[in-house]
Amino acid sequence: MKSINNNLSEKLIINKYFKKLNLKKKGTFNFENDGAYLTLNNNNYKLSVTTDSISENIDFFSKDDPESIAQKITTVNLSDIFAMGSRPHSYLLNLFLPNYINENWLNLFSNKLKKIQLKYGFYLIGGDLSKSNKLIITSTFFGYLNKNLEIFQNRFNLNDDIWITGNIGESKIGLEILKKNILTNLNNKKYFIKKYLYPQPCKLGPLVSNHVNSMKDISDGLIGDLSDMLRGKYGALINVNKIPLSANTKKILNSRNNFRIENLLNAGDDYGLIIISSPKNRNKILRISYKNNVKISCIGKIIRDKGIHFDSHLDIKNIKKFDHFC
Amino acid sequence: MKSINNNLSEKLIINKYFKKLNLKKKGTFNFENDGAYLTLNNNNYKLSVTTDSISENIDFFSKDDPESIAQKITTVNLSDIFAMGSRPHSYLLNLFLPNYINENWLNLFSNKLKKIQLKYGFYLIGGDLSKSNKLIITSTFFGYLNKNLEIFQNRFNLNDDIWITGNIGESKIGLEILKKNILTNLNNKKYFIKKYLYPQPCKLGPLVSNHVNSMKDISDGLIGDLSDMLRGKYGALINVNKIPLSANTKKILNSRNNFRIENLLNAGDDYGLIIISSPKNRNKILRISYKNNVKISCIGKIIRDKGIHFDSHLDIKNIKKFDHFC
Repeated sequence: MKSINNNLSEKLIINKYFKKLNLKKKGTFNFENDGAYLTLNNNNYKLSVTTDSISENIDFFSKDDPESIAQKITTVNLSDIFAMGSRPHSYLLNLFLPNYINENWLNLFSNKLKKIQLKYGFYLIGGDLSKSNKLIITSTFFGYLNKNLEIFQNRFNLNDDIWITGNIGESKIGLEILKKNILTNLNNKKYFIKKYLYPQPCKLGPLVSNHVNSMKDISDGLIGDLSDMLRGKYGALINVNKIPLSANTKKILNSRNNFRIENLLNAGDDYGLIIISSPKNRNKILRISYKNNVKISCIGKIIRDKGIHFDSHLDIKNIKKFDHFC
Repeated sequence: MKSINNNLSEKLIINKYFKKLNLKKKGTFNFENDGAYLTLNNNNYKLSVTTDSISENIDFFSKDDPESIAQKITTVNLSDIFAMGSRPHSYLLNLFLPNYINENWLNLFSNKLKKIQLKYGFYLIGGDLSKSNKLIITSTFFGYLNKNLEIFQNRFNLNDDIWITGNIGESKIGLEILKKNILTNLNNKKYFIKKYLYPQPCKLGPLVSNHVNSMKDISDGLIGDLSDMLRGKYGALINVNKIPLSANTKKILNSRNNFRIENLLNAGDDYGLIIISSPKNRNKILRISYKNNVKISCIGKIIRDKGIHFDSHLDIKNIKKFDHFC
């Protein structure tokens, strides 16, 4: 095996940093085969699958902590797995590594992956390594759910409730603080930058999946993702006062930063869920969220008038849709 | 949706060129969801999974025909799926597209993918698109096989037969012709360049899976891949005269190109299979290969002496192992 990347061979990288992530599961062949077997122990389950990539200078910067990059590649995928009403099962990693990646980086990156795996209960099933001039990470995640369940993103009825989990815009404020577009005190700074560097997926999806009509994670901002769900067939009436904002975000909006709620409606990388469900399931959804310590807010309802409407005046004409593919 | 890559939006690329590849299969949501459901119709089957990437200037060149690049990304993955004793089920595509990719390129690329899908019977289940300064394609393939079957790459017994399918070294000769390291006539030139640009996977894997002890595809060359299978536990005795070479390859070896069989033993990108099986299954394997029109050669056997030994003198000391990660 020839040496690459500061004398790191493919075998060394796999054996020293990634084998520990297969949790010795059967079917992974301890990463000694070119592929793996993907099995479910229960015939009543089926698999869900999603794949997403993050790239240097687009989704993160080379100076970012490896732990932050590990958090981002897992969160972008886990939030899709949860939105499909499924629980995490396993994942694949395709790593494109530039020369600056060293053993310290690999150690921090893989240890953070292991922590996230143990938190949510999934394992690494395989992957591949390539050299590259910039760091790119693709990951494919597998989830499992009841065979008969199917969660669409665009099936709902007139008057259905529109819920969102968590608070919106916090990752975006973190990024604006890093770009020095927002000035704030040290505590606020730390709070928001952490939200940007360590976004968390929302585990509620599989817990409420029997009571919802549609679910989607918020990766491109509330307006962008909700528009995707409506697909020009229905509209949404949003109660502006119900849009969930943290106390820290309210402080920023009330400060002299000239930063308004409109700026948060298309803030990417929140990774909460948009849930659309029948009003008759309102209490069930509230109870499950409360029991699982997940903040959830009913922000509006599905209406006949196409487009997204707000019950108060908001200047959203000039809001650019967040787009990862730009 | 904002415009990218010569005014191509993500939505246009997906709708115009990739939706046709989902073959309207249930679970793909016609690519309108962020993920897909991966189901098997038969409880007696399980899934296999493999993932591989190809990059511009490493595995192909930007001037290569899009059809050749489509062939390569599917062959590198299909040959692993076959080596695991499984039949193709579906696949994911992660495309990193530089600015030079236009609609003509996407049209040729996706049409070739569709042809390969129809030939082997599988469909596109999802993927993602990113911008990049060079073309990188990652693909994850799923196969299906009997739940109780498990094909290892390193389980076999002393005196087991070592088989290989197809001919070795043809893709390598094609590359050397393109690099002008080998001079030959026009017909030979066309023959070998096609082998390099359009490598084919070997479908024999799932057909013989009940009669083999181990299988692996030849992606890093015969010596490299066989060594990986032996893993320092056993050795192999190879009958040099049995190593399968096409008539065209023999012509090259007999010409004044100073190109010898040693140069072909670590030739990457052949994508035939190495099959290790008990001598008692010899007739079954020959019969199945013959019936399916697959060339197969028994080139040697497993011995106690570690390493790879040849029955004639070969100068293999200086052969560099082919390594995709260099």
